[in-house]
Amino acid sequence: MLEAGPRVVAAGVDLFADALDAQAVPVTRVEWRPPMDGTADDLATVVGDPRRATANETAVSRMVASEARLVDVGPASEVLGLERGTFLHAGPPLDWERASGPMRGALVGAMLFEGLAADVDEAERRLAGGEATLEPCHHHGAVGPMAGVVSPSMWMFVLEDPVHGRTAACSLNEGLGKVLRYGAFGPEVVERLRWMSAVLGPALAGAVRHHGPVDVKAIVTQMLQMGDEGHNRNRAGTPLFLREIVADLVESGTSTTDVAEVARFVGGNDHFFLNLVMPACKLATDAARDVPGATVVTAMARNGTDFGIQVSGTGDRWFTGPAEVPDGLYLGGYGPDDANPDIGDSAITETAGIGGFAMAAAPAIVRFVGGEVADALAATQRMYEITLAESPAFGVPVLGFRGTPTGIDVTRVARTGILPQINTGIAGRVAGTGQVGAGLVTPPPGVFREALAALAGLAPQAVLASQAPAVRG
Amino acid sequence: MLEAGPRVVAAGVDLFADALDAQAVPVTRVEWRPPMDGTADDLATVVGDPRRATANETAVSRMVASEARLVDVGPASEVLGLERGTFLHAGPPLDWERASGPMRGALVGAMLFEGLAADVDEAERRLAGGEATLEPCHHHGAVGPMAGVVSPSMWMFVLEDPVHGRTAACSLNEGLGKVLRYGAFGPEVVERLRWMSAVLGPALAGAVRHHGPVDVKAIVTQMLQMGDEGHNRNRAGTPLFLREIVADLVESGTSTTDVAEVARFVGGNDHFFLNLVMPACKLATDAARDVPGATVVTAMARNGTDFGIQVSGTGDRWFTGPAEVPDGLYLGGYGPDDANPDIGDSAITETAGIGGFAMAAAPAIVRFVGGEVADALAATQRMYEITLAESPAFGVPVLGFRGTPTGIDVTRVARTGILPQINTGIAGRVAGTGQVGAGLVTPPPGVFREALAALAGLAPQAVLASQAPAVRG
Repeated sequence: MLEAGPRVVAAGVDLFADALDAQAVPVTRVEWRPPMDGTADDLATVVGDPRRATANETAVSRMVASEARLVDVGPASEVLGLERGTFLHAGPPLDWERASGPMRGALVGAMLFEGLAADVDEAERRLAGGEATLEPCHHHGAVGPMAGVVSPSMWMFVLEDPVHGRTAACSLNEGLGKVLRYGAFGPEVVERLRWMSAVLGPALAGAVRHHGPVDVKAIVTQMLQMGDEGHNRNRAGTPLFLREIVADLVESGTSTTDVAEVARFVGGNDHFFLNLVMPACKLATDAARDVPGATVVTAMARNGTDFGIQVSGTGDRWFTGPAEVPDGLYLGGYGPDDANPDIGDSAITETAGIGGFAMAAAPAIVRFVGGEVADALAATQRMYEITLAESPAFGVPVLGFRGTPTGIDVTRVARTGILPQINTGIAGRVAGTGQVGAGLVTPPPGVFREALAALAGLAPQAVLASQAPAVRG
Repeated sequence: MLEAGPRVVAAGVDLFADALDAQAVPVTRVEWRPPMDGTADDLATVVGDPRRATANETAVSRMVASEARLVDVGPASEVLGLERGTFLHAGPPLDWERASGPMRGALVGAMLFEGLAADVDEAERRLAGGEATLEPCHHHGAVGPMAGVVSPSMWMFVLEDPVHGRTAACSLNEGLGKVLRYGAFGPEVVERLRWMSAVLGPALAGAVRHHGPVDVKAIVTQMLQMGDEGHNRNRAGTPLFLREIVADLVESGTSTTDVAEVARFVGGNDHFFLNLVMPACKLATDAARDVPGATVVTAMARNGTDFGIQVSGTGDRWFTGPAEVPDGLYLGGYGPDDANPDIGDSAITETAGIGGFAMAAAPAIVRFVGGEVADALAATQRMYEITLAESPAFGVPVLGFRGTPTGIDVTRVARTGILPQINTGIAGRVAGTGQVGAGLVTPPPGVFREALAALAGLAPQAVLASQAPAVRG
């Protein structure tokens, strides 16, 4: 009856395939996982949304077509119109009450830096008393790594996407260890912030104006061929950026002393370029916003308490769940007990298809975030399962220059249960500690379930059904 | 009789293993190739040399233990004591008569640059008349990429190996295209060399003296984790070096105009760092020289006509054969017919375990030299077959940080027939052309056969035999 013998295709469940293997029966294994619990109905609705395919194509095309040019550097008071007493922070909206240690620490440091409190106690009292206004960076066209706290006197990179006519901003990177974004607020932190506003910011502004727009996306393309993934590894991007602007820095009229100090500060901080990668990624993901029916994630951001995502088809609405503690490597004597839950807007890199999604381009990163080289390769491969496109600009050499997996699709996440892979720094959970490590983390699955439910509610079939007269009963 | 069934190990010949495979018999394949023709007797003698194992261990230990610090920059007249009318060149010894187009072109350019001839005709006439002295860079503790022509007024990097108390020197990299080292000698070439001697060299000297010794080996370690292999790809090494010295350049008293020009020149030439990698590699391989009985290659160098190698156990003797034309990718309208045979001392990188031996660290290089990413990975894997050690300093992330294959063993090359893999630039064969491409090349096999014969002649058994009285008529 069966001339060529039976052919066995095993989907998902390994037990069956293993048993056949043991009997020397050839088995073709197909990776398959059950959809996330409780998503079946919403998945059916959203997948059945007739707008979806075109909407996603529109959104992802915009995401990969975006450009990113550094056009200016200036204080947040000017470039974002940020007013005294208002602070931006990473992640979805948050109040002092629910803020974690590092977020509180960073806010305290920003109060001291702005001269809004004389000491830590006064700063905490005023913050607890609601005297400061807290708003997400994302609500102001900005992104901030870790706590992401921005105050009016802090200088910001301003990037422009000429293709879509958008801008995005990000603060300047302070370095590692005891720094504001990791929740430290000691005198050396505030002193460094003062120097950054007095010297670093103006010097970079002079360099950028003398240079003309700096093509940040082109540097990201290069760094991915140079062992960086753009989130936790910016070791190539940073010297490439310095090389790009240093002659202009010299020529822009900044004093020799300041030029040398700025060159040492930028060159001495392998993460400096992260704060340019992030707004470049925000320009890409913002370009994909607000396409009705599109199921593409446009932001993943954490405030140290909540992990939030935004999705193209649902606009500015946040879907949030509890931020998880990253799994990684710890500095010095720190360990998992010292770790704060996941924090920062830097997951915008993964949202745009790099960072954890481009780990195959950065195998050396396992020395920083933990794991084996094979895990780095596997992480990127796995992300192709939940994304809609392969970046034409960001190729991974070791994968034969295949483009990075780009454009997280909520339906694919729900259908496969595979969660986005995020590389991240780990902040100490006690305010004032600073960085304690770096590692890997994923979003809480619930945020995708909620986003899917919202998308289902907006699908034409669902809208029609809800508007239909209740003829029965 | 055979309780567990037969186990088949197939060495080399695939036909037999394939046949068993087809019958579903498990076969363990062992790569095996016949030794190079005519090497069997010498191989037996050299492998039987009782000094060999210890000698090789000594030589390779020194090679990997070497350090490399940039300590000064100065004119060849000073740092090498090079006299007017003497020119260094790449590869083994050569005279004008046998010199190829690009070597002649570079010598003509150097004559014009030194004011030893008023025009090209006069330069050629004087060179043909034997008025200039030609000596290999390698005979003066130096290395030069491509034609490698060094004249007394050219400025050189001076590197020091404090572990073995040695120094090595290399000229400054001119950039790509129409440049002296590729045999071009037009006015723009000579003009650039004048600027390099008047501005670039002194500025770099000022920066290095202000900075103090620059750890070049540490940068090589980093670049190998950033997609460079250190021969044809120095895209990370160059900005890392610029970052290291730029603040000191600014502070060293060089004018703002010159600092900016130097920063742009260095930063605008992705190969600039090659001329620091090469002397660092020469320090490593020189440390392995002159160990009696050691079969480790200490130099591979090409003058555009001959390919030469030197071996630890045979001292400064060159074993030469005809240089082959590289196989690669061509620039613009150039093609294989325009290519000169292999030229340059830059194969010192492969001799020290990087360059073509580290291609797995630099998969993106296939876009420059041709081939597929898998070829780059395979090249490094293959080089483990002919080397004695894995570099403790130079890890390849994608191979789980395995050290690069280091210390080419003449006996392993002869035994396997596997030739060292070299990445290289391709010079136009007509004097004055410049670079026409980049590609891959191997040494002519005969140089290893000759080196093996010489090693056999020096083996104690052979020496004793030759000294024994001829008792049997």
